[in-house]
Amino acid sequence: MTSGKLIGVGVGPGDPDLLTIKAIDAIRDAPVIAFFAKKGKRGNAREIADKWIPKDRIEVPLYYPLTTEIPFDDPLYIKSLQAFYTEASDALGRHLEARRDVALLAEGDPLFYSSFMHLYVRLRGKFTTEIVPGVSGMAGCWGQAGAPIAWGDDVLSVLPGTLCEDDLAVRLGTTHAAVIMKLGANLPKVRAAIVRADLLARAIYVERGTMAGELVIPLAKRGDEPAPYFSMILIPGNGKRL
Amino acid sequence: MTSGKLIGVGVGPGDPDLLTIKAIDAIRDAPVIAFFAKKGKRGNAREIADKWIPKDRIEVPLYYPLTTEIPFDDPLYIKSLQAFYTEASDALGRHLEARRDVALLAEGDPLFYSSFMHLYVRLRGKFTTEIVPGVSGMAGCWGQAGAPIAWGDDVLSVLPGTLCEDDLAVRLGTTHAAVIMKLGANLPKVRAAIVRADLLARAIYVERGTMAGELVIPLAKRGDEPAPYFSMILIPGNGKRL
Repeated sequence: MTSGKLIGVGVGPGDPDLLTIKAIDAIRDAPVIAFFAKKGKRGNAREIADKWIPKDRIEVPLYYPLTTEIPFDDPLYIKSLQAFYTEASDALGRHLEARRDVALLAEGDPLFYSSFMHLYVRLRGKFTTEIVPGVSGMAGCWGQAGAPIAWGDDVLSVLPGTLCEDDLAVRLGTTHAAVIMKLGANLPKVRAAIVRADLLARAIYVERGTMAGELVIPLAKRGDEPAPYFSMILIPGNGKRL
Repeated sequence: MTSGKLIGVGVGPGDPDLLTIKAIDAIRDAPVIAFFAKKGKRGNAREIADKWIPKDRIEVPLYYPLTTEIPFDDPLYIKSLQAFYTEASDALGRHLEARRDVALLAEGDPLFYSSFMHLYVRLRGKFTTEIVPGVSGMAGCWGQAGAPIAWGDDVLSVLPGTLCEDDLAVRLGTTHAAVIMKLGANLPKVRAAIVRADLLARAIYVERGTMAGELVIPLAKRGDEPAPYFSMILIPGNGKRL
């Protein structure tokens, strides 16, 4: 008598046909499909995987706590998220104990800046786990931009837009290629760092890569209004081109 | 009357079930399947995609020139590779001119350190192109290692093992998470840099991730013998865990 298995399923950058065979098999075989969502929304991962989810599955939406009024570094925010991740783990744990496999959907890849990881580290000591890697959001974006991101001996830096401008500028000045995520209201600060590193001419802004409403433009043509969730800036490498 | 389309198809890290639906569709629909290989070998990308390739396709193996006797930075090596990429582009160009779509297979993702990119930049001015992004080799490796690679505001650095030890040590000392590729005979130097950055305890060595013969061990338990082609070192981030 064994418990169920927790499977972290990467659903890729947005296009439903960018799920892998292994992801689709995992979704088809698991009796329980779990996913993160904002209250009142379906959730991005659930949306991306929609056409692959059989009708008769037990669906477990995990709703983020409403924290829009609290700053990210406030202890209240951290405490609220910790409680949420623990409750969500417990909810999935009950299915696993009842010997039901749980496929927990993750946008992009499950071990790359995902919410999945917070449940994974809580549950993996107690239950069998499996990771189904996915196409990352950044690969979806540089693919749609037609921008080879790193060549030969290029160093690629993946930078969160939450870093301070000085830190961003130094890192951009010492890398060959970069991807900058978590733009949101950080966009003007990120742009300033890119200008300081003299990289504006190479910077590409991508929004909703591989999805409906996709936008690929030079960063120089992008205004300063806050960037939506599915957006990033690419600075392709200039490395050894033979 | 239009030309054929060049499609860069990411075939993922190694497991044939880690191809996406879109990649399989592209392979099924293209009359010409091209791939890089060493003389006398089938080629890694062709091997990975084998079960998805119909029998009646025109297959175009692109054999790398034999350059084992020439150092990588020798102008002769560079000239030889340039000529190879140009000839390979011409060979695919003839199929495209004859209105045959060409699916050019790439291990992992087609725009991430791939040979595909050298043909892509030569052909994209003349022909329609499309990129089918893939699961990267590194995502396959950290998935098999069960190692969440980057959390919250972590900076992730992708570093080639060809960098000098000082450069590697400085970069490792200022990043939160790292993936080190192109190990080969660079392994002892890479290890020395990791030790200098005091990261040996966190470093994981992965060989043939998602493939037969897979090996996941702490770097500390890995000897100094040269690492094979499909290998990398992961240093997972320690960022905000809630």
